[in-house]
Amino acid sequence: MTDPHDLAALRLRLAEFAAARNWRPYHTPKNLAAALSVEASELLEIFQWLTPEESARVLDDPDTAHRVHDEVADVLAYLLQFCEVLGVDPLEALSAKIDRNERRFPADTPNDYSE
Amino acid sequence: MTDPHDLAALRLRLAEFAAARNWRPYHTPKNLAAALSVEASELLEIFQWLTPEESARVLDDPDTAHRVHDEVADVLAYLLQFCEVLGVDPLEALSAKIDRNERRFPADTPNDYSE
Amino acid sequence: MTDPHDLAALRLRLAEFAAARNWRPYHTPKNLAAALSVEASELLEIFQWLTPEESARVLDDPDTAHRVHDEVADVLAYLLQFCEVLGVDPLEALSAKIDRNERRFPADTPNDYSE
Amino acid sequence: MTDPHDLAALRLRLAEFAAARNWRPYHTPKNLAAALSVEASELLEIFQWLTPEESARVLDDPDTAHRVHDEVADVLAYLLQFCEVLGVDPLEALSAKIDRNERRFPADTPNDYSE
Repeated sequence: MTDPHDLAALRLRLAEFAAARNWRPYHTPKNLAAALSVEASELLEIFQWLTPEESARVLDDPDTAHRVHDEVADVLAYLLQFCEVLGVDPLEALSAKIDRNERRFPADTPNDYSE
Repeated sequence: MTDPHDLAALRLRLAEFAAARNWRPYHTPKNLAAALSVEASELLEIFQWLTPEESARVLDDPDTAHRVHDEVADVLAYLLQFCEVLGVDPLEALSAKIDRNERRFPADTPNDYSE
Repeated sequence: MTDPHDLAALRLRLAEFAAARNWRPYHTPKNLAAALSVEASELLEIFQWLTPEESARVLDDPDTAHRVHDEVADVLAYLLQFCEVLGVDPLEALSAKIDRNERRFPADTPNDYSE
Repeated sequence: MTDPHDLAALRLRLAEFAAARNWRPYHTPKNLAAALSVEASELLEIFQWLTPEESARVLDDPDTAHRVHDEVADVLAYLLQFCEVLGVDPLEALSAKIDRNERRFPADTPNDYSE
């Protein structure tokens, strides 16, 4: 990651962008959660027919690399906007979750971060 | 957001967490994209039967507020891990996308960030 | 629904369609589950910014009506193909689930079919 | 599939089930599309860390086999309910889509049913 100050700056740019276009009425938490899941699926769509090995080389093709970056941007954009409208701090939420997971999963336990 | 340095720090903690538990073989880009979309759907599940108005008050109930924070953490965790294994910079990707969208959507255009 | 014999016939047409195009190697249960979730998200995308009231009138616009039918077809196609490769009978699965739910949820319980 | 008459019968049972529990107000097309995508993700969750080979043996374990059948039932239930509230015939939609795809994709074209 480049400048760690970017996350707060990006969050502000997204809020101003939506406000300038009168999009805020559409940005209910429910709608933003739906949009976030739709964008996450668009990222998955790139990988749906690939073998595990092919999926690791997905950036070799410039067009696919662009799609990957674009969908990553969309997922992060909707996550930040969802957090903005509800007043959730995503970094604090993740930090607290890692703390809990370090207690829940001693080293060498099966693979799952979710609760 | 609290400390802007957290994003890089969290990314490192997640990488160490996965390595210490031998989870890296499972963390193909394809699997992480699938996990990201599953977690985004778990966030959406909280809202699926709510009215727009109810969705705006979702943090009023402590149990639901905990679920929201937990799913936000899971989405961000898998997004960062996906970016880590492919070497994608999510902040740079989003910054470039906002630049493109500011050119594509002059103020007052219909609501959609995605391409 | 038109002819109740269609479901078995459609399942067979889908299997022949995939075999004739040498797509069967791609049709692992994992890939088909991913494709099913991607198509379900494409259906959701049509509704993501709509109010509940607008969502009820979605067939009034011919283009949107076509998209809805198209995504419904994709979801059903991947569900049938997923069931085909694993030998799951979706009608029997649903019938058994409704039986369980009629025992679990007496009339007037909160809204959730899932377990 | 067992009795081909089941699909219409199941659709009716689902409608009566929802009506008896006063769930119809929640069953807007938008909410049902969200619920459908959430259930499709729950099906995907079963497969997210599996290799392609492991995913083909997912019914060997009785608990996992039960989960697979349960999520297939949920996906079909919400698809049928979505179609019910909008008056969409899913069998006709799929039949029309296969007709289109047979024209679009001559044998041996790359793998994608979606538009």
